[in-house]
Amino acid sequence: MVAGVSPAGRFAGMTDSLRAWIVSQGEELLTGQTLDSNAHFLAGRLTALGVRVLGASTAGDRVDAIEEALRAACERADVVVCTGGLGPTADDLTADALARVFGVEVEENADALAQVLARYEAAGRRMAESNRRQAQLPVGCDVLLNPVGTAPGFAFTGDARVFCLPGVPHEMRRMWADHVDPWVREQLDHEPPRRHLFRVLGKGESQLQDLLGDVPERFAGVELGFRTKMPENQVKLVAAPGVDAFADAVSEVRRRLGKDLFAEDESVELAAAVAQLLVARGERLALAESCTGGLVGHLCVTEAGSSAWFDRGWITYSNRAKRSDLGVAKDTLVAHGAVSEETAVAMARGAVERSDAQWAVAISGVAGPTGGTPDKPVGTVCFAVVGPGVERTRTLRIPSRSRDLVRRFSAYAALDMLRRQLLRLGS
Amino acid sequence: MVAGVSPAGRFAGMTDSLRAWIVSQGEELLTGQTLDSNAHFLAGRLTALGVRVLGASTAGDRVDAIEEALRAACERADVVVCTGGLGPTADDLTADALARVFGVEVEENADALAQVLARYEAAGRRMAESNRRQAQLPVGCDVLLNPVGTAPGFAFTGDARVFCLPGVPHEMRRMWADHVDPWVREQLDHEPPRRHLFRVLGKGESQLQDLLGDVPERFAGVELGFRTKMPENQVKLVAAPGVDAFADAVSEVRRRLGKDLFAEDESVELAAAVAQLLVARGERLALAESCTGGLVGHLCVTEAGSSAWFDRGWITYSNRAKRSDLGVAKDTLVAHGAVSEETAVAMARGAVERSDAQWAVAISGVAGPTGGTPDKPVGTVCFAVVGPGVERTRTLRIPSRSRDLVRRFSAYAALDMLRRQLLRLGS
Repeated sequence: MVAGVSPAGRFAGMTDSLRAWIVSQGEELLTGQTLDSNAHFLAGRLTALGVRVLGASTAGDRVDAIEEALRAACERADVVVCTGGLGPTADDLTADALARVFGVEVEENADALAQVLARYEAAGRRMAESNRRQAQLPVGCDVLLNPVGTAPGFAFTGDARVFCLPGVPHEMRRMWADHVDPWVREQLDHEPPRRHLFRVLGKGESQLQDLLGDVPERFAGVELGFRTKMPENQVKLVAAPGVDAFADAVSEVRRRLGKDLFAEDESVELAAAVAQLLVARGERLALAESCTGGLVGHLCVTEAGSSAWFDRGWITYSNRAKRSDLGVAKDTLVAHGAVSEETAVAMARGAVERSDAQWAVAISGVAGPTGGTPDKPVGTVCFAVVGPGVERTRTLRIPSRSRDLVRRFSAYAALDMLRRQLLRLGS
Repeated sequence: MVAGVSPAGRFAGMTDSLRAWIVSQGEELLTGQTLDSNAHFLAGRLTALGVRVLGASTAGDRVDAIEEALRAACERADVVVCTGGLGPTADDLTADALARVFGVEVEENADALAQVLARYEAAGRRMAESNRRQAQLPVGCDVLLNPVGTAPGFAFTGDARVFCLPGVPHEMRRMWADHVDPWVREQLDHEPPRRHLFRVLGKGESQLQDLLGDVPERFAGVELGFRTKMPENQVKLVAAPGVDAFADAVSEVRRRLGKDLFAEDESVELAAAVAQLLVARGERLALAESCTGGLVGHLCVTEAGSSAWFDRGWITYSNRAKRSDLGVAKDTLVAHGAVSEETAVAMARGAVERSDAQWAVAISGVAGPTGGTPDKPVGTVCFAVVGPGVERTRTLRIPSRSRDLVRRFSAYAALDMLRRQLLRLGS
């Protein structure tokens, strides 16, 4: 629903030239108390729709500063998205500032007041008098329904179309989807650009550049982008809606990435990719973790429905635990050490034997900051995957001295080793 | 080192009125590719020094836009900190933009070039011709040494003192510490405000307000602030350096918070607070996790040196695992269900019996999104702590439908239950 918007005037037929500005409001953003994830979200969504974000500004809780930021934004952009400053307290000043920008008064808006009252009524609570302030809006604005919070949003059409949304991230996101996104789509006389995401493990950015660098030449109109999100690398293809070669480019990139590609969806994490493969085979997983300390289990159980494929795990941090809980032989530990492929595979075998799982993954490594030796420096991590007729081991030297990074990288490497093994077998 | 800064002119004796502006530069910030953590970091550090951050702006890779943002910042603030745009490519335009703002030329800076060359030499690599661009700086600027990256920073004194730092976060942070922080301290004719942080579990913001609301009245000159960082709440006391009552206020708040206070340091996490108590007693911990799936283990092993106090863990996600690995009786599971205090305490007992630990914590709950019943809705989580002469159980109804939140909250609640138990015993 876009309340009362008639996309006329300067917006009609604006096509691909729509320009945006993001204004974030709140003193907590300027004192370092709160990280501004709203601007990041809005920048990504606007860009995905093909809108050019020209700039972003942050203002504190002073009406002059907010007015100045909004005025500058309206002078430069066609659409301004402002977040924050819609609450009931005296430092919530967005409505006042916007009214000043467009030279109108602020008055109690009956629609907005009804919305605030209805929200309190539904919750069985009485509205405090201070909440009446949330209905004080610029004359002539469109009230935007907020179904998940008390602060109504509003939009005003002046030099630009300005959307004012609450600063609470989940409210802001809901109102983006209900109000701003549909309005932007209405302005554009074509579909947003097409995008395809590839999520990759095992290849760095320069390797991906070598592998895929010729794609934009081979498929006219298709753009290629890279992004590192340690330990994952992402490849993005973007093209205007009319570009016929897009589907072929997607197929070609998929083919070239092969097993390094683990997902093509922002919301599918590595554990979910593993889950799909296990569920397709009707098999289950057990874990034997040492240096990762439960992190692999955490990644697995983060996935809803994990009980269908995740059986159990052991966090055998001490050597005695490796022996008594997983049956690793004392001789193995003495001869090869806890951080060895021999110990890792014994841990994984023990996990399969002692569980209802067909598959086990084991991890044992030196996470640091201490415990490294010349032979096995910090970052040395041994892995094993054991399954029906399969035993594989691997040692990585993770080039980091950061305990967090070594452990995180190890957890992803362990799941990825299992994923590649399952892909090799087919389903 | 503050290269060549003579804190004269308008900066001398500026005391507490120093005003700052933050300018972030990079197209990736406006397309939603990168979250701007630099501005957040700088806002926090400047505020901590007692500097007022008036605003923040983000500009993309257009020299006009960067120039405009810098110009506006210099007109309003005494110190401007700009990040990004110092790389070797054509879209790195900060030096050009800053030169335009102050009406000077850009030229190859010998100091900067020597720095870039030295950096490559130390790495045993040849400098690419394109890196020469990183030494093209505004005439009259001060070059700032970057000991952790190739891009030198620079500072320029015009209407404001402008610091240009690289966009790579760890480089930016290092250069903040080496160059900007000392300069700011030099401008202030007194020490930065004193701050004290209290990290609290088990009390919400409104309860803390009731408990501590009178502190600013009782201790003149002491300010009180709250911040929620789920599931933790933070209390901050701030005062000017001369406020005598500050130490007393800190003592009083500490006394009132009692056992709800788990740390007074940004870098001490809950698991570290538990670790200190266990190490003091010379005792060790085992875990029996179900719905948290290894997250508690992960939090424990995140702490360096955890092998001194963390023994092992079981992720008994299935009922069969609870029985075979921890010895939970079938009758207990049938009579009370997996999510029950009876099952939780049996899990914890089993963990103590089967490990070298004196203490065990067990967690079993309904994380959702499915699996809830009218009796035990999503968010129902049972906990047990078992130790020498101690058996305690507890059930929480976590008011969230989010699997992630329920699991995260449960992990903290489990560690906090152990912490309180250890505090009760003393050391």
